Amino acid sequence: METIEKWKRYELTLKGSTDGNPFRDVELTATFNINNHPVTVDGFYDGNGIYKVRYMPESIGNYTVITHSNISELDGKTASFEVTEASHDNHGPVRVSGKTHFAYADGSRYIPFGTTAYAWTVQPKKVQEETLATLKENKFNKIRMLVFPKSYSYNEEEPELYPFEGFLRYKRGANDWIFNAKETGFDYTRPNPKYFRNLENNIEKLDKLGIEADLILFSPYDRWGFARMGLENNLEYLKYIIARLASYKNVWWALANEYDLMDLVGQIPVKDWDEIGRFVHEKDPSQHLESIHNFYDPPQHKDTVKNWYDHTKPWITHLSIQSDNIFLIPKWIEEYQKPVVDDECRYEGNIEFGWGDNTAKGMMDNFWRVILRGGGCTHGETYIDKPRTKRPIWWAHGGKLYGESQKKINFLYNLLKENGFDWVKPQATSGPTWELAVGSTPDEKKWIVYIGENQPEFEILSFLPKGKKYSAKLINAWDETIEEFDQEVQNDKYIHLPRKNYQALLLTEK
Amino acid sequence: METIEKWKRYELTLKGSTDGNPFRDVELTATFNINNHPVTVDGFYDGNGIYKVRYMPESIGNYTVITHSNISELDGKTASFEVTEASHDNHGPVRVSGKTHFAYADGSRYIPFGTTAYAWTVQPKKVQEETLATLKENKFNKIRMLVFPKSYSYNEEEPELYPFEGFLRYKRGANDWIFNAKETGFDYTRPNPKYFRNLENNIEKLDKLGIEADLILFSPYDRWGFARMGLENNLEYLKYIIARLASYKNVWWALANEYDLMDLVGQIPVKDWDEIGRFVHEKDPSQHLESIHNFYDPPQHKDTVKNWYDHTKPWITHLSIQSDNIFLIPKWIEEYQKPVVDDECRYEGNIEFGWGDNTAKGMMDNFWRVILRGGGCTHGETYIDKPRTKRPIWWAHGGKLYGESQKKINFLYNLLKENGFDWVKPQATSGPTWELAVGSTPDEKKWIVYIGENQPEFEILSFLPKGKKYSAKLINAWDETIEEFDQEVQNDKYIHLPRKNYQALLLTEK
Repeated sequence: METIEKWKRYELTLKGSTDGNPFRDVELTATFNINNHPVTVDGFYDGNGIYKVRYMPESIGNYTVITHSNISELDGKTASFEVTEASHDNHGPVRVSGKTHFAYADGSRYIPFGTTAYAWTVQPKKVQEETLATLKENKFNKIRMLVFPKSYSYNEEEPELYPFEGFLRYKRGANDWIFNAKETGFDYTRPNPKYFRNLENNIEKLDKLGIEADLILFSPYDRWGFARMGLENNLEYLKYIIARLASYKNVWWALANEYDLMDLVGQIPVKDWDEIGRFVHEKDPSQHLESIHNFYDPPQHKDTVKNWYDHTKPWITHLSIQSDNIFLIPKWIEEYQKPVVDDECRYEGNIEFGWGDNTAKGMMDNFWRVILRGGGCTHGETYIDKPRTKRPIWWAHGGKLYGESQKKINFLYNLLKENGFDWVKPQATSGPTWELAVGSTPDEKKWIVYIGENQPEFEILSFLPKGKKYSAKLINAWDETIEEFDQEVQNDKYIHLPRKNYQALLLTEK
Repeated sequence: METIEKWKRYELTLKGSTDGNPFRDVELTATFNINNHPVTVDGFYDGNGIYKVRYMPESIGNYTVITHSNISELDGKTASFEVTEASHDNHGPVRVSGKTHFAYADGSRYIPFGTTAYAWTVQPKKVQEETLATLKENKFNKIRMLVFPKSYSYNEEEPELYPFEGFLRYKRGANDWIFNAKETGFDYTRPNPKYFRNLENNIEKLDKLGIEADLILFSPYDRWGFARMGLENNLEYLKYIIARLASYKNVWWALANEYDLMDLVGQIPVKDWDEIGRFVHEKDPSQHLESIHNFYDPPQHKDTVKNWYDHTKPWITHLSIQSDNIFLIPKWIEEYQKPVVDDECRYEGNIEFGWGDNTAKGMMDNFWRVILRGGGCTHGETYIDKPRTKRPIWWAHGGKLYGESQKKINFLYNLLKENGFDWVKPQATSGPTWELAVGSTPDEKKWIVYIGENQPEFEILSFLPKGKKYSAKLINAWDETIEEFDQEVQNDKYIHLPRKNYQALLLTEK
């Protein structure tokens, strides 16, 4: 009998008819059963008369499979397989744990250290390989990426493959990167299996690197019509992609990048998202994380109508936000009782856009502040040689990193890991310590006090629990150094600090 | 006939009874009349049988004065004086102009460039003189200062004089800087004229330097009971101080520093402020600016109950806020349709408190951002040698400045003045330019685009009006340099910038 590890993918392959439009005409599901707990999942058409059903088993033991179809060749097929314990480096999917943070399904620690390369899987093969090599060198454990190709400044090349059959009928105008692409020549009822195979192979490679694919299902940055397929086609596309990808343990469903912009430009209306969100939640047999991401940052905008999507909806597992107001992270965690990931807090780069001209120090500073305030954080890099350059830019294409913030982010990642931060409990988030970012281990035995660009030469950490004594290490986040700090730390005791930028203290209760 | 300049102070001195408590028992007012426009103002007792009535005339021509009193020695006294045109450097009081900004009464430009030395007038004479000398060397045109002495960390010395008769009956405890000082030995019904003469002499000296006295009438930082006098005594004290000081053209009424803390610690309840605010507004014959200042910064606090005072009250002329959320300044200006002064946005220093450990660069950066977003901004400096040091610290005592931000603030002040910014019209306050601070002259002929710590090597200033062309100067805010910039600027044209920190562009329409 076939054996697979828990949380890996079981795949059943069947041959069937190629008549009509198999993507829409053929119904195929399969019921997976273990200990009388049946789960029914959708299959999908993979082209050339090949049909597949995939499933990520989560229990140890013997599963049986039986298919159901409206065509006899695919109906009533049976199979069985055995699921064995997960191997050492297989921790399962990331799930919400303890309401406001994350963990792998096996209970091991997961704090989101994201990066962003929206359209890396539709770049030339060499760039895809470079992207994976860059990821391997760094500690990012999540990447924001699109299913569809991207149309935007610096994203003007056509992909080699399209996600649907057809061709680009219209020539792009100079400024219509958000294109009114209603009739572009694509047949949204016929996905292109080759396109999705490339996507899923890359997701599999990410999993081997221990990286979650925060997969963005819709985006406004479109000139092919994929943002304007209409609700019925959208749901059929979602059914297809869930059938293909829900068995990949490292997939997260990010419904949209900037859903609010999609409404604004007449693509997907705000009212559709609840149905879309519930559909994904109900179709996915593996309970992947699900989020919806904003363009407008309410605290910043005069127009308070531009609010976030209602993150209290039950199908939203965590907040995936775009915001520069990172001191509010603990407030949002408390308010929503869900994990908060600041997926766009300005990228390191020198591009002409405000979201992409932060310094390496600024990107690093945001990471420390978001992470210590209990959130997840996401990196991006936008260095250009000249305006409208054609060379790969990490934020969109992947490729190589030219900046420095990733090294500092790796340093923070290692610091938290080596000091047993399973998650970060935000501390001292208001009042007299507004300039600090302070987080502790859940048991409050270890604390990190990030001072950042401020210059207190004297500090009194009055937010620490009374009566406790701490030994300390002095960290420099930019220099990536950790030194002994020879002063004992208590909540009512003055400490003296060198006047340097980007310092932090790591405290360990004595 | 006595002549005085418009907006200078007319003073009538009378001899009267010293029986009983002249501060409370004697009623004295005077009616000032010009062209059948009578204004009645309160007089005050200045000790030793001397009573005074003061008034700041605002019209050219002959005024008559007649007194009214419940004691015959002071009743029905008459005088007259002539008011002449204001001399060159006398611009009158600062008033709200065009709803959302300020100007002097003669129409000349005023943008608040504040500093803070809360208790400078109760320091030893030498420190008071040093404070004035420091102010003379810099461009600050407003200073936040208390009427009363201050009790707080680093503010532990007793003043030489007290504002009321009496003595400090209780010895201060180690931690009770907000002292439950109900019975401290002071007689709140008997102001100490000597104390107030010193205060007003200093206000007069500030006026000679062109500096507005943003005079804080109540503060929670008290161990003498002055924060707990009760509503009746509070109003009598206000009547007294208005009678003494309303004729000083450079006085602003700042009702409280951190009114919300005063409620929290049981000093002045929130409900009293409306009566206090209206009382000041009604008693003051000269319509000085009036504000009320917060401790809690609502966007930052989890506890959203800690809101600002209701700045829509008609007696509030402008917002005097404490906030680090300086990108919200244009939103607040629009929302309240009043000028906004960020009077505490973190001081340059190395003290143990989060509000006072910003770098010089950070303080400078906040100034540029607040001012270009249309607000007024206030500096403070908190350098200490060691915890609990006794030497003067500018923020509290005045004295000398040891930092660097004041030089950069002077540079910005001169830049705006020399380029005809009568006030700053905030521009491009949201959307793709969130990392910039952009302001223009009211006629939009000149713009300043502040890039700050960001590093766009390429920019496209798409927020500029279409079709306009600008010549530009490249500014470095930290280096205090202004250079020619040889690229023409238009809203759709890429420009190239050196990758340096703290740059700005000054644009002039061609």
